[in-house]
Amino acid sequence: MNITIIGSGNVATHMAAAFKNAGHRIVQVYSRDIQHAALLAYHVSAEAIDSLDNINPDTGLFVVSVKDDAITTVVKALSAHKKLIVHTSGSTDLNSLLAFTPKAGVFYPLQTFSKIREVDFRSVPLCLEGADDGILADLKQLAFTISNNVYSVNSARRKILHLAAVFACNFPNYLYGVAQDLLAQNQMEFNMLRPLILETAQKVLEQEPRNVQTGPAVRNDEGTMATHMQMLSEMPMLQDIYSLLSQGIIKNNKGITAPE
Amino acid sequence: MNITIIGSGNVATHMAAAFKNAGHRIVQVYSRDIQHAALLAYHVSAEAIDSLDNINPDTGLFVVSVKDDAITTVVKALSAHKKLIVHTSGSTDLNSLLAFTPKAGVFYPLQTFSKIREVDFRSVPLCLEGADDGILADLKQLAFTISNNVYSVNSARRKILHLAAVFACNFPNYLYGVAQDLLAQNQMEFNMLRPLILETAQKVLEQEPRNVQTGPAVRNDEGTMATHMQMLSEMPMLQDIYSLLSQGIIKNNKGITAPE
Repeated sequence: MNITIIGSGNVATHMAAAFKNAGHRIVQVYSRDIQHAALLAYHVSAEAIDSLDNINPDTGLFVVSVKDDAITTVVKALSAHKKLIVHTSGSTDLNSLLAFTPKAGVFYPLQTFSKIREVDFRSVPLCLEGADDGILADLKQLAFTISNNVYSVNSARRKILHLAAVFACNFPNYLYGVAQDLLAQNQMEFNMLRPLILETAQKVLEQEPRNVQTGPAVRNDEGTMATHMQMLSEMPMLQDIYSLLSQGIIKNNKGITAPE
Repeated sequence: MNITIIGSGNVATHMAAAFKNAGHRIVQVYSRDIQHAALLAYHVSAEAIDSLDNINPDTGLFVVSVKDDAITTVVKALSAHKKLIVHTSGSTDLNSLLAFTPKAGVFYPLQTFSKIREVDFRSVPLCLEGADDGILADLKQLAFTISNNVYSVNSARRKILHLAAVFACNFPNYLYGVAQDLLAQNQMEFNMLRPLILETAQKVLEQEPRNVQTGPAVRNDEGTMATHMQMLSEMPMLQDIYSLLSQGIIKNNKGITAPE
């Protein structure tokens, strides 16, 4: 399939690579910054453009991977070409495309992407939505060429998924950084924590998070929690986080017998 | 080596199994609840006891893996046997053992253990402390029989490690559960999030958390954050968590150019 990538950020980069690796042709890569466009275009053997006036109409699909608040502007410009347009955003409604074109869909990858890290795209859950059954069927066929995890998800549910992903990914990653800072302040290396971080994630691949919760809060170990709060006394924000998340764990645990 | 396990919880269970697998003899397993003691004792071919009066003196080491606030009571009773005593607690000072015996140390595994999940013990970081150099050397020798990750860590630093582990493990696991709840309320399965959770952890095995932070907060995407806060309007506790952790990410990101 001939595919045009609009954007050059983390999602655009990995999505373009996945399409290219699956044998599709990337026609053009657009970015406001021609250098960003050129870098990605080089990797996927495409033409780089920095103006939507230079769109090559010989494409079957526009994949719009730009900041959420730029989506409508871009789609408005692309709609003149009468080709299928999808966005890759978790929190943007399909209706925001339908305002400009009936040939619209969503191609949302439920994964965290950073340019500096390769991803096994075949395990990335792809959440699809189409303006009609024909479009959804076409998107499914395309999706299965790059992933084994393809879901049909409407806009309302996709928003929930995106919110859940913030709790399951963005916030844990922030907390990893907090842990690293605490160690660094005391001349200890983050490397000591890496096996723990990996095991914490691996545990919930087969178990429910509630059933494998450990730590002072789930044991209701008030002495240790008080000591920790005191250790954070000069970091009021971390105290607030410690207190709030511990309360959450304690609340979850109410009515369940504490483990020995 | 002949080893006696005091406790039958998550840490005691995995530690006893690791020692047994490495060829050591587990002499006895103590628990206040004889059924708990018996279950673990059965797995490691040891005798189960529920009274410290029945301790077999033919042991070289007492491994005390009980709740933090029970450690001193237990150690006081064990000290009469004049054998080496270690505890496995992250937040208990070595001094709390030295009050009862000079032959004391710490054997703290920096990992999350649940009875229902096997662990590759050779990758578990073991943080050791000894009352003197001879004890520390003996503990190191023992530690290397069950793990490749052996560290010497004093009580002050061990407390920091334990606090950091709460942020890196216990809190992320709680947030996984929050994400699961959000999906369940909307008839979606946790399984959709599992690849994301695993990738989030795997990313920081090679990268620094700050360099791979993704999501609306690091993009300072105020529209999406406002939408998320609204979606949580009937869950004030989750709103507080969302707001606080997003502020933390934004604060970290100050002065760094936002990714496109």
